[in-house]
Amino acid sequence: MTQPGRLISFEGIDGSGKSTQARRLAEHLRDTGRDPLLTREPGGSPGAEDIRRLLVEGDPDRWSPETELLLFTAARRDHLERLIQPALAEGRDVITDRFADSTRVYQGATRGDLRALVDQLHSLMIGREPDLTFVIDMPPELALTRGLARASGEDRFEEFGLPFQTALRAGFLDLARANPDRCVVIDGNRPEAEVAADVIAHLTVAA
Amino acid sequence: MTQPGRLISFEGIDGSGKSTQARRLAEHLRDTGRDPLLTREPGGSPGAEDIRRLLVEGDPDRWSPETELLLFTAARRDHLERLIQPALAEGRDVITDRFADSTRVYQGATRGDLRALVDQLHSLMIGREPDLTFVIDMPPELALTRGLARASGEDRFEEFGLPFQTALRAGFLDLARANPDRCVVIDGNRPEAEVAADVIAHLTVAA
Repeated sequence: MTQPGRLISFEGIDGSGKSTQARRLAEHLRDTGRDPLLTREPGGSPGAEDIRRLLVEGDPDRWSPETELLLFTAARRDHLERLIQPALAEGRDVITDRFADSTRVYQGATRGDLRALVDQLHSLMIGREPDLTFVIDMPPELALTRGLARASGEDRFEEFGLPFQTALRAGFLDLARANPDRCVVIDGNRPEAEVAADVIAHLTVAA
Repeated sequence: MTQPGRLISFEGIDGSGKSTQARRLAEHLRDTGRDPLLTREPGGSPGAEDIRRLLVEGDPDRWSPETELLLFTAARRDHLERLIQPALAEGRDVITDRFADSTRVYQGATRGDLRALVDQLHSLMIGREPDLTFVIDMPPELALTRGLARASGEDRFEEFGLPFQTALRAGFLDLARANPDRCVVIDGNRPEAEVAADVIAHLTVAA
């Protein structure tokens, strides 16, 4: 019987380097003869990418936080059942750039009273947590500069504000403290290769 | 202080005449000097109409029943908070062609084990029920002929099968029996004007 793969998520604020680190970990696993699946949220599967377009395009006030949460959850459910679970069942590791923790932290930073709703909706419709989560930590002042440098039309302007990014960083660190069984905080404010080596070292310990 | 309007839903299988009856009731209220809002689901508000397109276009297997349920709920939340609630608050009656009962009955007929999930998601994210629900009842053999005559590209082929429509009809009747405080079953197999008069008579009693 095939041993199921591991679901590994990368989390952190915009510009923290999490996407780069997710890609580097996938490359490392490929170099060691494995066949990881590298994916991202929101999106990942064709249906979830269609839902992503509803989420990232148009007026920032297009959706209420509750409707947005339902759309994120719909996209995640599709991503999970159409892409992630089949890959894990084949024994492939799945590396995802963001997963449910992003929803917890972003919606919680937007409106504190939403956090309980996020968790209830997650247990009802998703259930699954990553086996391992890397929180790439970075002072928002630095991440902000990096994030702005590659801002695309998709990005929502208000998310680049420093107070909001500071709240997000605190949210990710709180979440890591509350879930020490699966979360590892990685100092992202170092040369890229050094951060990547740190991620790989933790993966080896956890495996 | 403005007295809030009533939320009135029309439910039933395709071809039962519920859309016609919803429109006729709106016309009747207009004739009596009221200013009702006539709307429909899935859709109704601009955002919900965008989500509707994801639901009704493409391959019928595009979404799993659970993802579909999340998308229906996202559309309903948007419809409720952007269109229905503001109109009710202004004292307008809102007449909607389908509401949450359609999700209960359709998802329940698709896969029985989903019904509990539909109800849990509804209490978590929607909460509100109509003040009055008209179930327009019709033998599926007759409704099927009427439905097929005006089938649009949006309709999903498999939903026209007689066994499925028979299960839906039973689902609507069960639901009406379980919610006698707000549901009225109307015999739709009569001349249109006669059905409309019956609806108006029940509305007057309920008001």
